[in-house]
Amino acid sequence: MKIWQKNIDVDSFVESFTVGNDRAMDLHLAAADVLGSLAHTRMLNSIDLMTDEDLAVVQKELKAIYKEVLAGNFVIEDTVEDVHSQVEMLLTQRVGEAGKKIHAGRSRNDQVLVDLKLYFRSEIEHLVGQVEKLFEQLLKLSEQHKNVLLPGYTHLQIAMPSSFGLWFGAYAESLVDDLELLKAAWKVCNKNPLGSAAGYGSSFPLNRTMTTELLGFDDLNYNVVYAQMGRGKTERILAQGMSAVAATLAKFAMDACLFINQNFGFISFPAHLTTGSSIMPHKKNPDVFELVRARCNKIQALPNEIALMTTNLPSGYHRDLQLLKENLFPAFQSLSDCLEISTFMLQHITIKDNILDDAKYDYLFSVEVVNNEVLKGVPFREAYRQIGLDIDNGTFRPAKEVNHTHEGSIGNLCNDQIQRMFDEVKGGFGFQKVEQALTELVK
Amino acid sequence: MKIWQKNIDVDSFVESFTVGNDRAMDLHLAAADVLGSLAHTRMLNSIDLMTDEDLAVVQKELKAIYKEVLAGNFVIEDTVEDVHSQVEMLLTQRVGEAGKKIHAGRSRNDQVLVDLKLYFRSEIEHLVGQVEKLFEQLLKLSEQHKNVLLPGYTHLQIAMPSSFGLWFGAYAESLVDDLELLKAAWKVCNKNPLGSAAGYGSSFPLNRTMTTELLGFDDLNYNVVYAQMGRGKTERILAQGMSAVAATLAKFAMDACLFINQNFGFISFPAHLTTGSSIMPHKKNPDVFELVRARCNKIQALPNEIALMTTNLPSGYHRDLQLLKENLFPAFQSLSDCLEISTFMLQHITIKDNILDDAKYDYLFSVEVVNNEVLKGVPFREAYRQIGLDIDNGTFRPAKEVNHTHEGSIGNLCNDQIQRMFDEVKGGFGFQKVEQALTELVK
Amino acid sequence: MKIWQKNIDVDSFVESFTVGNDRAMDLHLAAADVLGSLAHTRMLNSIDLMTDEDLAVVQKELKAIYKEVLAGNFVIEDTVEDVHSQVEMLLTQRVGEAGKKIHAGRSRNDQVLVDLKLYFRSEIEHLVGQVEKLFEQLLKLSEQHKNVLLPGYTHLQIAMPSSFGLWFGAYAESLVDDLELLKAAWKVCNKNPLGSAAGYGSSFPLNRTMTTELLGFDDLNYNVVYAQMGRGKTERILAQGMSAVAATLAKFAMDACLFINQNFGFISFPAHLTTGSSIMPHKKNPDVFELVRARCNKIQALPNEIALMTTNLPSGYHRDLQLLKENLFPAFQSLSDCLEISTFMLQHITIKDNILDDAKYDYLFSVEVVNNEVLKGVPFREAYRQIGLDIDNGTFRPAKEVNHTHEGSIGNLCNDQIQRMFDEVKGGFGFQKVEQALTELVK
Amino acid sequence: MKIWQKNIDVDSFVESFTVGNDRAMDLHLAAADVLGSLAHTRMLNSIDLMTDEDLAVVQKELKAIYKEVLAGNFVIEDTVEDVHSQVEMLLTQRVGEAGKKIHAGRSRNDQVLVDLKLYFRSEIEHLVGQVEKLFEQLLKLSEQHKNVLLPGYTHLQIAMPSSFGLWFGAYAESLVDDLELLKAAWKVCNKNPLGSAAGYGSSFPLNRTMTTELLGFDDLNYNVVYAQMGRGKTERILAQGMSAVAATLAKFAMDACLFINQNFGFISFPAHLTTGSSIMPHKKNPDVFELVRARCNKIQALPNEIALMTTNLPSGYHRDLQLLKENLFPAFQSLSDCLEISTFMLQHITIKDNILDDAKYDYLFSVEVVNNEVLKGVPFREAYRQIGLDIDNGTFRPAKEVNHTHEGSIGNLCNDQIQRMFDEVKGGFGFQKVEQALTELVK
Repeated sequence: MKIWQKNIDVDSFVESFTVGNDRAMDLHLAAADVLGSLAHTRMLNSIDLMTDEDLAVVQKELKAIYKEVLAGNFVIEDTVEDVHSQVEMLLTQRVGEAGKKIHAGRSRNDQVLVDLKLYFRSEIEHLVGQVEKLFEQLLKLSEQHKNVLLPGYTHLQIAMPSSFGLWFGAYAESLVDDLELLKAAWKVCNKNPLGSAAGYGSSFPLNRTMTTELLGFDDLNYNVVYAQMGRGKTERILAQGMSAVAATLAKFAMDACLFINQNFGFISFPAHLTTGSSIMPHKKNPDVFELVRARCNKIQALPNEIALMTTNLPSGYHRDLQLLKENLFPAFQSLSDCLEISTFMLQHITIKDNILDDAKYDYLFSVEVVNNEVLKGVPFREAYRQIGLDIDNGTFRPAKEVNHTHEGSIGNLCNDQIQRMFDEVKGGFGFQKVEQALTELVK
Repeated sequence: MKIWQKNIDVDSFVESFTVGNDRAMDLHLAAADVLGSLAHTRMLNSIDLMTDEDLAVVQKELKAIYKEVLAGNFVIEDTVEDVHSQVEMLLTQRVGEAGKKIHAGRSRNDQVLVDLKLYFRSEIEHLVGQVEKLFEQLLKLSEQHKNVLLPGYTHLQIAMPSSFGLWFGAYAESLVDDLELLKAAWKVCNKNPLGSAAGYGSSFPLNRTMTTELLGFDDLNYNVVYAQMGRGKTERILAQGMSAVAATLAKFAMDACLFINQNFGFISFPAHLTTGSSIMPHKKNPDVFELVRARCNKIQALPNEIALMTTNLPSGYHRDLQLLKENLFPAFQSLSDCLEISTFMLQHITIKDNILDDAKYDYLFSVEVVNNEVLKGVPFREAYRQIGLDIDNGTFRPAKEVNHTHEGSIGNLCNDQIQRMFDEVKGGFGFQKVEQALTELVK
Repeated sequence: MKIWQKNIDVDSFVESFTVGNDRAMDLHLAAADVLGSLAHTRMLNSIDLMTDEDLAVVQKELKAIYKEVLAGNFVIEDTVEDVHSQVEMLLTQRVGEAGKKIHAGRSRNDQVLVDLKLYFRSEIEHLVGQVEKLFEQLLKLSEQHKNVLLPGYTHLQIAMPSSFGLWFGAYAESLVDDLELLKAAWKVCNKNPLGSAAGYGSSFPLNRTMTTELLGFDDLNYNVVYAQMGRGKTERILAQGMSAVAATLAKFAMDACLFINQNFGFISFPAHLTTGSSIMPHKKNPDVFELVRARCNKIQALPNEIALMTTNLPSGYHRDLQLLKENLFPAFQSLSDCLEISTFMLQHITIKDNILDDAKYDYLFSVEVVNNEVLKGVPFREAYRQIGLDIDNGTFRPAKEVNHTHEGSIGNLCNDQIQRMFDEVKGGFGFQKVEQALTELVK
Repeated sequence: MKIWQKNIDVDSFVESFTVGNDRAMDLHLAAADVLGSLAHTRMLNSIDLMTDEDLAVVQKELKAIYKEVLAGNFVIEDTVEDVHSQVEMLLTQRVGEAGKKIHAGRSRNDQVLVDLKLYFRSEIEHLVGQVEKLFEQLLKLSEQHKNVLLPGYTHLQIAMPSSFGLWFGAYAESLVDDLELLKAAWKVCNKNPLGSAAGYGSSFPLNRTMTTELLGFDDLNYNVVYAQMGRGKTERILAQGMSAVAATLAKFAMDACLFINQNFGFISFPAHLTTGSSIMPHKKNPDVFELVRARCNKIQALPNEIALMTTNLPSGYHRDLQLLKENLFPAFQSLSDCLEISTFMLQHITIKDNILDDAKYDYLFSVEVVNNEVLKGVPFREAYRQIGLDIDNGTFRPAKEVNHTHEGSIGNLCNDQIQRMFDEVKGGFGFQKVEQALTELVK
């Protein structure tokens, strides 16, 4: 069943080519599609385009379908083109004529737009929750191991003393900044495109402010041409937000793979969380971190893919935009999995003690020795030159004690400040307002 | 002169390869570098690492150098490795020993980090100003031409009536959302990395909160390992913010090229703003828009370039990061030029009237006719089917009058709301606080 | 069943995360995996690591499995990790002990490497076949419509006369150059990595030259470390080859969308090959070309995704490489579909005649008029200036007749030369040698 | 001076925006531009569009300009738009009227096209020469250190014995496959677009076969619309070819950075080829390899940038294409520098002996032990399980002797075969034919 079909059969090859994987992708939008219709029909009723009786049966049945979606009982039939047609067909089967009236005053275009924004909001909220769990685990490990020293590297060369407190805490703080990007994506998603119809508005006296409130949006995409232009753009911005988190995870995974490596040997994981080799019986491979890295690098490629698929398209809808779903929708689950498994792995990490006792790390302390000379009054550049000569002559002796006190240093991690920053950014999303609106809508 | 040079000459091939274009890029950082040193030395004095006398001469001379930079009189000499060395050398030449003391408690790494953040803040503020000018020009044109109709296209097929009011307004509203990304970049930039030294902190009792306030930062990059990790990440996020604006400009430029094309012919520009052909004497080419499009697409490629250059690098500084300057720094000027010339071109645009009188645009009104039937009580799907048959039979007669009233539609553009949203986003940057701090610092 | 499993259960969360979609992807490798084992076991026998009896039963059963794969009856069971384990397990179930011996002298790594190369070769050959069909259709249309003129555009401005003969022929010739990239990919794929084991070779006296011949490879990946390094690299190069074809298709699709647009109206397609709108009953949208464009732009994003996922990984295998399958493998089908549907659409294209009769295209002929003056002896720059003034003064009169005779021009398309070039490039692949070897192997 | 200028001044802001950095980029094309004109004018003469007298003075003067270009004495004046105008202006200044006639029968478009192809051919040939030098250095080191063992890693875990012979040789062989991509780029570049004019051919009876031969091209871009379509496409394919080499270099640089790291310590370089730190006096940083890696990753981003800037542009010239020069042209020098400095560094590399004496590498030999059991008749899966248990129980004893004999293994590197493959690929370019033609042309 294709809604727009008149009386000519579209060639079946063309049909299968154009539908593609769309049905599978559209399943993700089912809940959002019902929510959009719940709001739209209440608005239609308010402007006398739907009777009170029709509204009552339609609302009742849409809420029933919503429950079916949540329960995992909703499917898109093979003969149905997309999720929107499936919902409309179900509704019409169950409530008759009234079901046919819900599409008045909207187009497939703004219906998809609002579905996407509702779906993206929900996924962002879920991701922020997962980010928070990882953040907390990292901060906990940072506190727990704040006194265990690590070599710090620059240029991958032994440089200065670091600590597990710093290492774990750094990735926690990284997630704070990443949330700024996710929040920008949230802001872009949290505006209502419904009522823009096919991107040029409607001759019906729609009340877009009403659907905005019912769906818990912060604001409208006012200009209807812009509302349509949000397709592709929203996806790209969202993919950038996800990429920010992904980049942090990928970097941590790279560190983890290096630190597990036997030449470093700073951390380890229990055998049941590593994997083996088909020919080397001694291997315990860090596959989880390699795949976190790979999945996250794949997510980092998404914004560029979206840019390539949308750049140089003039304004107005193009079917190209449908295809953006294919790599973006699965990326939500993939990033969520990466966050969850990273948190899980960190719950089982083992840290090596006394790493710096190894003589090869002695030079880590050269800056400390220089600084000590400075504190005694020697100009910095002279102290630097002298210790350099000591090192060259083999007469350098490290003072292996680290006494860093300033904000964010080994001895003063400021994890409470990092927690404060996290809470501030998270607070800026305003998830609660959205949740309240949606709870009200499906009640 | 290389600060870190002891007594072995680096091979000259290696030297020229490693320095590369860095001197040219570093000129952009000169003002920021001096600002950073002004704050750093005041802090050194506060923790007794610089005497009051030394501070006085150093501050006086740094402020003099700052004025030279603003006046365009600052150069990096060929024998000097980078901007930081040049400033330090100038200072030492002019004030002697005191100049050598300013590097205590910092590393080249956190010096570059803070320079970059100060520089990026300044460029973001400049770009937001340019975005605002374009925004205002677009909104002005939208109001001015709000009653002039245009064909609206979907799938590049004639679809429904649009208007110049919608078209210009759409791009204005697009810039509002783009600012969300720039603001995320601003938030990431507006945290102080100074005091993180080489990424592992310092044994000096630095007061990082003090430099944070002096430089007008909102917050600290607390964790010193994270402060270092911000290199590359900040650039990528900033490039994403710039890409958001660039994508809007590129899309507008594509529309402009299409609408100037003789098959559309919706807009035109005076001959002195177009260019000719070496063999076709009739050509008046829209080169400006083609180059805006190309430059903006190039900017859209930046985040990916940065990702490719930084992905899979473990934590800690790597020299790779130096090379991020090369395409990013010139992109500020390029994007600023694109914004400025787009505003300029729009000041000279000519709009074609009565476009829809052409019979080929009659079908634009088919939805209006369907909707009129619905308002008379015909179910939507039946009205749709009937008008479809009229069109197929050649009996369709359009009612060429557009009466759209809802929010954001042709008859109700809501440009005041779009203006309000712009002001809200812009207000969230907090430029004034930064300006006040810097004015105080160089006074 | 995991081949490398000893006695510790891998945590099930870790297991499902690491396996991911690998089973689904691996199905594509089934035929290749069996081919590789057919060659490997014959070689093992030749160096006395497999008895004649074992070889006989193993070969017989592998050939049976090969037939099952071709018949679509091969599945990877849910409890089995990958295609390699499935084949080995089936074999062992059916022939007992002998089945366990086939993994001697190889690792999962070189097994995957050779599977990939065999699979890629097969997909490249299939794609070249599809490219050829499209090439022939384009060339046929070029000949058929060689006398039908079109406006030629530069800067999207009306420029000079073109023709459907040129337009179709251009895309045919484009495919010739694209094949050069696919051929480079083929050359890289057509070298044997089998025998490199885990990337460091084997202590068994393997005969890699023998498997090279049995599998029809042109050459060996000699150095075993390089053989392993080919993973990721081969995928990237192959994706570049596919991108070349995709870029040509995407550009053609963009042209088609523009030319179908009512403002151009140069070409059209029957209604059953276009799609409708849910609210606009008059629409006949060119969805096929929009989706060809989008799919092909997505394929163009692939090489970058692969680069992002593999860059900065040191030499040696990393599990990241497994994930390259996910977007690459489906891209073969997608590109093949795009080629096939483009050929199909072109079989139904309708061309508009007499386009240039429209007065708006008069200026197309300005260069002709200039050139005529030049042929009369007027210096080019003067003729150009004069005709320019005529145009400005409205006194320009076109000579609407095109008399282009040089190679590749409207009047002399040289399609036979383009055909010759196609045949030459295609001939360079050497598909026949490969087919003969594989036919022999499974006989 | 702008060739196409009639009598209206282009606004100076527009002019500076549209010219951009084009003059600086165009200098790279000067030699090619003169070569193109040498061939074009001889062809014009052959079809009676230039007299013998004019030809003689024009040829003489163009050859003089060519020498000036080679001597570095050619500049593009600030008042001149591009290289083509500069050459034409110089010529006209020196030989008068005859100079004005050389543009007959061509457009700026095909002039740029042929310039680019000639320039790209020259750069490809130069790069192949640099690749060859690095290839030879790698192969020499491979032979020299073929008996020095290294740990081989998979998953960055200690895996199996490798050798410096394998490591150096692997990168040599990698370059062989990279040349396949460069050769594909060469093939695409080595076809003549001259005569396609503005992309729609010319009414003059041009002899394109003649210029093809004069310029040493292998073939023509026959179809004139396709010849124009080669702009952007050629650049993208060339950037892919360069990326192949860049990816190999970047990977080698990553390995080098890791192997220099003190936790590995496998290789080292003299102090004068490393750099220091501004605060850590003991540092000897591998900046060269970090910058090779970064530059090469930047080059790897180029094909995607080009794709983003050209995708979804319909056929026909667009000014966007001018901007492709900006990152591509400097990339030639950058890649050449990376090749040269890598070769240079490898001439000074120091290799650590006896690495595997360290007990932490004992497990490298587990596969050898398993294989020894297999050779004694134990089924592979059983031997694997037994040695795994030995390792778990701490009873594993390695046989630290490597006896690999098959093709491409530690004991049988087959460097002669790798050399043969290199020679075969290089032979396929056919540089000599091109050189002969050009030598003839400028004689």
